[in-house]
Amino acid sequence: MTGNIDDAIEPLERRFLLDHPWDAARLLESLPSDQAAVALSRQRIEVLVPVWRRLMTPIATRLLGKLPDARATELLSVLLPNEAALLLSSLPEPDRDRYLNAMDAREVSDLKKLMSYPDRSAGRLMNPVEATFRTTTTVAEAIDQLRETRSRNTRSLFLVDEENRLSSKVSIQDIVVANTDDRLQDLAKPVTAYVNPLSPQDEVVELLERDRLADLPVVDLNGVLIGVIQHAALVETIQSDATADIQTMVGASKDERALSKPLFAVRKRLPWLQINLLTAFMAAAVVGLFEATIAQFTALAVLLPVVAGQSGNAGAQALAVTMRGLALREISTSQGFQVMFKELNVGFVNGLAVAITCGVGVFFWSGSLGLVLVIMLSMVLAMVAAGFAGAIVPIVLTKLGQDPAVASSIILTTVTDIAGFFSFLGIATMLSFML
Amino acid sequence: MTGNIDDAIEPLERRFLLDHPWDAARLLESLPSDQAAVALSRQRIEVLVPVWRRLMTPIATRLLGKLPDARATELLSVLLPNEAALLLSSLPEPDRDRYLNAMDAREVSDLKKLMSYPDRSAGRLMNPVEATFRTTTTVAEAIDQLRETRSRNTRSLFLVDEENRLSSKVSIQDIVVANTDDRLQDLAKPVTAYVNPLSPQDEVVELLERDRLADLPVVDLNGVLIGVIQHAALVETIQSDATADIQTMVGASKDERALSKPLFAVRKRLPWLQINLLTAFMAAAVVGLFEATIAQFTALAVLLPVVAGQSGNAGAQALAVTMRGLALREISTSQGFQVMFKELNVGFVNGLAVAITCGVGVFFWSGSLGLVLVIMLSMVLAMVAAGFAGAIVPIVLTKLGQDPAVASSIILTTVTDIAGFFSFLGIATMLSFML
Repeated sequence: MTGNIDDAIEPLERRFLLDHPWDAARLLESLPSDQAAVALSRQRIEVLVPVWRRLMTPIATRLLGKLPDARATELLSVLLPNEAALLLSSLPEPDRDRYLNAMDAREVSDLKKLMSYPDRSAGRLMNPVEATFRTTTTVAEAIDQLRETRSRNTRSLFLVDEENRLSSKVSIQDIVVANTDDRLQDLAKPVTAYVNPLSPQDEVVELLERDRLADLPVVDLNGVLIGVIQHAALVETIQSDATADIQTMVGASKDERALSKPLFAVRKRLPWLQINLLTAFMAAAVVGLFEATIAQFTALAVLLPVVAGQSGNAGAQALAVTMRGLALREISTSQGFQVMFKELNVGFVNGLAVAITCGVGVFFWSGSLGLVLVIMLSMVLAMVAAGFAGAIVPIVLTKLGQDPAVASSIILTTVTDIAGFFSFLGIATMLSFML
Repeated sequence: MTGNIDDAIEPLERRFLLDHPWDAARLLESLPSDQAAVALSRQRIEVLVPVWRRLMTPIATRLLGKLPDARATELLSVLLPNEAALLLSSLPEPDRDRYLNAMDAREVSDLKKLMSYPDRSAGRLMNPVEATFRTTTTVAEAIDQLRETRSRNTRSLFLVDEENRLSSKVSIQDIVVANTDDRLQDLAKPVTAYVNPLSPQDEVVELLERDRLADLPVVDLNGVLIGVIQHAALVETIQSDATADIQTMVGASKDERALSKPLFAVRKRLPWLQINLLTAFMAAAVVGLFEATIAQFTALAVLLPVVAGQSGNAGAQALAVTMRGLALREISTSQGFQVMFKELNVGFVNGLAVAITCGVGVFFWSGSLGLVLVIMLSMVLAMVAAGFAGAIVPIVLTKLGQDPAVASSIILTTVTDIAGFFSFLGIATMLSFML
């Protein structure tokens, strides 16, 4: 055998890291971090970049700490500034300062600037501009400038005036097919969307949805171009925003993360729980109306949660489907009647089917045909009401200009609980001669 | 006055449609469709394209029907093929056929092909390839070819071999900075991700997340390049996929849309409701254990839904936040203990706060200090259990390789109902001497 086995492994690892960064990231995440750091430390820094981008932030942060300081600093320099800022801001302060002290002064000032913007703001997502262009620049000059910056991510050239204020943009596709002596002003298109560094992430997503952009310029209050939010950050932002509805629906703030501080979570969630308690008392008051009937037939207390639970679920289904249709703009509020009609139908058919299973179960448990009749009738009634409410609540909230995600779940639960309790106990009281 | 007022309005409308297509789309959506059609019919077809893209599908479909046939057909030809296919497939069959008959044979065959792919498949999202490139093509030749196709959306040039099989790609950024006599093979990079036309949308999204691509090639089973999914379609797909979790959580299928046929909705939702009924019976059985206590103190039946409802809400909050953290890969399952510890803390603090409000309410209602003690103790207990369950359920499901959205809501409700009923009625039975 000629050569050392390690000499053969290193190029293999390199190819794996470069060609399959996603799989490599999953593998590294499953290794103890010391071992992963050893494997990574024998590779050139450029080889680490693609895999680093695909590591989960907590693991990327931990691995960074395991690398020799010089290497960690080098890595922070070759990552995109917004990626480096994200990593640095999730490090404990002493580590962060150590790395920053070892970096180039200009880079440090860029990174500190990015980190100074609030969480979930456009400033956190952008990268500082690498090259600005003038309207009088020729295509040939622009191409030379692009060669220098070697930025692989430029999809639009943003043109600025004498005071560096954003004026228009030229798409890279147009540069390709242009003549080299064309001036950029001949290719320029108006900028239809831009944000400030303090603009909230929601605004970024709204503009994206509107204009389906591949990059979004960031300007300061004077209109001076200071950064660009690029495709990769945009994709992540859309995802993060689209999944946030799940949280707002149940009264957890969009800002809460899985590892937020407990007191932050309490502060955001508690108001909603307290409001919900109020509506729970309203539902309890409905049960209270029928206390005499329950005292007589305790079996009703046993079955009470079944009807309310099923109508709650059916309502949640109708709500989820309607809300998503509104969010993706597949339906307009003017189609409200169609959606309600659909949900009434679904509620009736599902109600009937669930009522039959439920009736069979109750018959075997109690042997009382009266009780079977009561629960079947009330199940159908409650599920039709739930479907109707699940459709109408988000449509009305949207019509009123509200975010249908914020309050619809609480209103819906109140409606389905009250409808469930009222129909079950009301029918039981009316038919109590049969129980 | 020289000239007609209409002559002045037409260019104004044109500028509005071209520069503010999003606002124009919202305005058109709010107009009666006859009136909107009149306004649109005086503009050149190119002016309509940007606004058409931003109309909601149902309204775009309705407006299309109001345009003169020749104009509607013209519009379908200038839209991107995947946009035209989406519009056509939401039209009633006679209208669709009428338009298709008036179109160019080649376009028709492209569109019919696209429409033949199943809903939520990659084939529905792609556009047919406009230009393919060989490894031996020079940059200058490639640029000439791009000038001919005039495709504004090309972000990558896909290279194919003699049998038109996809071999590699060159990014448009690299073309810009290359020398005109470079061959494309010198700039080519491996294709790390591609799909088949029948690949489900989920796979498209997974690849996007992995590689943060701006376009995704579609190949047939022989590897022949047949289409490209472009940025705009990718953005919509991510959004549609990210919002689908809201539906799967409550047992509505990802495939259901707000205006799906009622029977489709029933078929997808009913199985889950029936399973849920089973778990509701389990919860009812817990209540049944304490029927004797309830018979003695009917106030317990009145308050029963309050404790279960609050723990259900608290659990849903913990679940939503944990699930989102997992979906966005902000936490790994190995951080399960940290998340559980956080949720236990949040559950305890929120439980305490809610218990106090609840205790005050119950005191005013019943005047019984025993009942106050029972509901306060059980509220804290149930809410701690709910927080714990909300965190552990999605983490364990993910560890087991399951989609945490699919079943977590049903498991969670079962846990919170049982924990709520058991703690409330159990404590009441133990402390019944105080009631």
